[in-house]
Amino acid sequence: MHTLDQLNAMPATEFVAALDGVFEHANWVAEHAARARPFATVTELHGALMAAVHAAPADVCLGFLRGHPPLSPKALADPGLTASSRSEQGGLGMTSLGDRLAAFETGSAAYEARFGFPYIVCVRRQTPPFVLKGLERRLANSPDQERAAALAEIGYITRLRLVDRVNGPGMPKTAGHLSCHVLDTARGKAAEGIKIELFREGVLVLESVTNHDGRTEAPLLSGEPLRTGRYELRFHVEDYYAGWPNVTDPPWFDVIPVRFGVSDPEGRYHIPLLLGAWTYTTYRGS
Amino acid sequence: MHTLDQLNAMPATEFVAALDGVFEHANWVAEHAARARPFATVTELHGALMAAVHAAPADVCLGFLRGHPPLSPKALADPGLTASSRSEQGGLGMTSLGDRLAAFETGSAAYEARFGFPYIVCVRRQTPPFVLKGLERRLANSPDQERAAALAEIGYITRLRLVDRVNGPGMPKTAGHLSCHVLDTARGKAAEGIKIELFREGVLVLESVTNHDGRTEAPLLSGEPLRTGRYELRFHVEDYYAGWPNVTDPPWFDVIPVRFGVSDPEGRYHIPLLLGAWTYTTYRGS
Amino acid sequence: MHTLDQLNAMPATEFVAALDGVFEHANWVAEHAARARPFATVTELHGALMAAVHAAPADVCLGFLRGHPPLSPKALADPGLTASSRSEQGGLGMTSLGDRLAAFETGSAAYEARFGFPYIVCVRRQTPPFVLKGLERRLANSPDQERAAALAEIGYITRLRLVDRVNGPGMPKTAGHLSCHVLDTARGKAAEGIKIELFREGVLVLESVTNHDGRTEAPLLSGEPLRTGRYELRFHVEDYYAGWPNVTDPPWFDVIPVRFGVSDPEGRYHIPLLLGAWTYTTYRGS
Amino acid sequence: MHTLDQLNAMPATEFVAALDGVFEHANWVAEHAARARPFATVTELHGALMAAVHAAPADVCLGFLRGHPPLSPKALADPGLTASSRSEQGGLGMTSLGDRLAAFETGSAAYEARFGFPYIVCVRRQTPPFVLKGLERRLANSPDQERAAALAEIGYITRLRLVDRVNGPGMPKTAGHLSCHVLDTARGKAAEGIKIELFREGVLVLESVTNHDGRTEAPLLSGEPLRTGRYELRFHVEDYYAGWPNVTDPPWFDVIPVRFGVSDPEGRYHIPLLLGAWTYTTYRGS
Repeated sequence: MHTLDQLNAMPATEFVAALDGVFEHANWVAEHAARARPFATVTELHGALMAAVHAAPADVCLGFLRGHPPLSPKALADPGLTASSRSEQGGLGMTSLGDRLAAFETGSAAYEARFGFPYIVCVRRQTPPFVLKGLERRLANSPDQERAAALAEIGYITRLRLVDRVNGPGMPKTAGHLSCHVLDTARGKAAEGIKIELFREGVLVLESVTNHDGRTEAPLLSGEPLRTGRYELRFHVEDYYAGWPNVTDPPWFDVIPVRFGVSDPEGRYHIPLLLGAWTYTTYRGS
Repeated sequence: MHTLDQLNAMPATEFVAALDGVFEHANWVAEHAARARPFATVTELHGALMAAVHAAPADVCLGFLRGHPPLSPKALADPGLTASSRSEQGGLGMTSLGDRLAAFETGSAAYEARFGFPYIVCVRRQTPPFVLKGLERRLANSPDQERAAALAEIGYITRLRLVDRVNGPGMPKTAGHLSCHVLDTARGKAAEGIKIELFREGVLVLESVTNHDGRTEAPLLSGEPLRTGRYELRFHVEDYYAGWPNVTDPPWFDVIPVRFGVSDPEGRYHIPLLLGAWTYTTYRGS
Repeated sequence: MHTLDQLNAMPATEFVAALDGVFEHANWVAEHAARARPFATVTELHGALMAAVHAAPADVCLGFLRGHPPLSPKALADPGLTASSRSEQGGLGMTSLGDRLAAFETGSAAYEARFGFPYIVCVRRQTPPFVLKGLERRLANSPDQERAAALAEIGYITRLRLVDRVNGPGMPKTAGHLSCHVLDTARGKAAEGIKIELFREGVLVLESVTNHDGRTEAPLLSGEPLRTGRYELRFHVEDYYAGWPNVTDPPWFDVIPVRFGVSDPEGRYHIPLLLGAWTYTTYRGS
Repeated sequence: MHTLDQLNAMPATEFVAALDGVFEHANWVAEHAARARPFATVTELHGALMAAVHAAPADVCLGFLRGHPPLSPKALADPGLTASSRSEQGGLGMTSLGDRLAAFETGSAAYEARFGFPYIVCVRRQTPPFVLKGLERRLANSPDQERAAALAEIGYITRLRLVDRVNGPGMPKTAGHLSCHVLDTARGKAAEGIKIELFREGVLVLESVTNHDGRTEAPLLSGEPLRTGRYELRFHVEDYYAGWPNVTDPPWFDVIPVRFGVSDPEGRYHIPLLLGAWTYTTYRGS
């Protein structure tokens, strides 16, 4: 971890070494950007790095794209994979695609045949179904469109890698935010002690519980991009209602599922639940 | 199928034959009730039949209770099972209990050892988890309490069998009612064309679609008791929202699940869904 | 009151007499329409009457328009006013405009000076503020546009007068519908015994109370056009909440006002109120 | 304005002078409390002052109660009224009671005849209707109950006067909080630019407007007790909806009134409004 001040002050070779791996097998990117120092903000540093990529001759750029590892469970077994790529792909979990993994492998091969470089996507911003969906959509691009799309994804990838390595002013926004709030509109106060499960594309991501303010102590998700996909909060309210008048067996509500889609990985999502005795309301909050 | 007038007018032996099987292996019940004819309503007829059971000597009544088949997947294989019992148990599907079926079998044996007759429950009003839950609760009863509980269940069983065989005035209430309604509060009108799935204890029971009035053409369930248990309606709204402003990928709502518990098999349940663009509300309607 | 069959069968002179006053001082309209008898529906009869107006020479039509009384509190004092006009204008209550009545009088004079006939509007479909608003809007019309607008209003006026005099199949739709429903989502049932006041443009129109089904025994308004304007329902819930847990002094809710606008006099308006302990929801129902 | 440290350190005579008027015509209260210095918190200082009142002989205490001015529009004309009393009574506005002012004057006289001292109430925590309501309730008290009730009100009065004069740690809680929030659930974001009027007992208290976060820049009320009474927020939404699809004339919603009761002057009240196109929801938030 370096500060931006340190990066601004160090010799160019050290600067390049400090950013080694941010751009996959492409230290020439940092070499170019080094000349533009000093940078006032981390966002400016990232801009300079991406500008170097965009300014590179077409064949150099193509070589850079070709230098990316394929996105595939098999690639994880390749000892030549960079640590960043290994961690990013490992966190994605493409095997959860099950039957559709074969379609993804076929599509990836078609993509590489068509465009001459592997399908590149910032996987920290995605769930496997949307990685697959994006592949299908991008296969229809023209070569120019697709080169731009791949570079846009590289922008996302390297922005995330950069903020993991540099501290300084003007950090680019790389994180989303997901929170919830349970109000008890039957009693006119926050609903405390309600267990919450968060699922993403059918996979349990975390469990939490509401505090005296009807919120979880920490945001459900923050500090990372929210992965694009379908989410479900499950509010376990059966115990909360126990002892209320007219509780039936089974109770009217036991678990309240709230499904919603996350389309903006850097977005702010807030899910209130207004809980009455025989009713509830949910909405996209702010 | 007979009319109540026919039953009132026919010779006693025909009357007994007409009701054969309503009370399991116990035509003496109808023999007694035959003397109390004529009946003004079907409810009165059922009352007379149950009165005969309650008036019977203790050993006769015990013999009647003992004459009921065990509630068990194995019993379905017994060729001596009455057609009514076969149909009723077949519709319940105890095998869906999975791992908990063994606990049910053990509990049933304990029950019969404790009370001297098999566990009797009106299965047309239940789902398997609540048949098991009822067994566990009733095992704690005293013999007197449990004899009363078993007779109450026989009241439910025979009431249902009776209305399947007799037409006439004053039918007892044996059916519940489940309906839903989808209002589009973003457009101020009923929401048409929304596919709905109904699950009961995790099993898909039916699919339907909302009409121009936001309702299904027929009630979701009616004409039968609602089986006690946990229900889930899944409103498939993704297509409904397509073409609206600001639709994201994935959309904010794709499927809206609404879970609720049915505790009264003869009750009236109405589930409205107020559907906005970024919000919804549900409640127990009337 | 005649039946359509009677109108179809009677001599033309009687037919004209029977419809005397439907078209203001213009029995020639009925004389023309009499020749087109028989009519299968009341709507068809009305269509034939309006067709006669539209087919009349321009000067005849202008004379007809000029034959209408001015819309004014003063006109009510004129003994030559037809009974229909007297009743219709009396029910409107233009004096409730207060300070704005002078603006209306000035506008009316400007209108008559500009178009050569008085401002005609079907007052049974309006409240005074919207009669004034319509005047201001129509003053900007071209003479042709305005002649069409006046005839459209005459269509509304005469349709209402006709259905007051004729019984028969195919009645035109001349009535709107306003109803409400109060659900208690804190107890999961209809809310009974809630006093409701209905105001229209600030004037109390009626009071009612919810029955065991949470509805008023009769629709709030029906059988007449709903007058275009701003309505407010006031649900008096203070007594309903008395005895609930945690009632404060003053209570959280005492009167719940729900304001809404009626723009379609022949429309169907349904106002549900979902009443929780510390929350409520209202929406345009169906 | 003094700091608590200053009050702790100054000679007793200065201490008494500094608190002159906190207790109406009763500097002996501060004289007693001066001996208990130093105080760690303002709450502790107030506790010591009230303890001196409670410890006083019955006749001294009665004299103190008698030393309070009557609560009456006429009292405002008395040049002997303390500045605090003048300001407090002036802010209350008893004349808004209208016809009921005579009932209040009669009740006040009955009260003084019954208990031997004027009706004392902390008017900064009340609206006139609740001042009258409290009078009627307290008239039914026994003399002992009422002496306690009057001293409790003096506790509230002096607590408010004290915090206006002293700065220091451990301030007693004397202020309530009222805020609101408008969410646009049709667009999934905060509703900006909505004009809000706040009425209290029918009197317009303030106007504000929602910002980009759907809130008012400052809380609607804070820094003072909320006066007990009936409040109404009027959300002017007509302009907000202009340009939406299917806007009618008049629009479905023009002004949305939300009435609620404030019973706890030091409480926290938050009023969210979830605004859809044809629906809204409000609730007591947190």
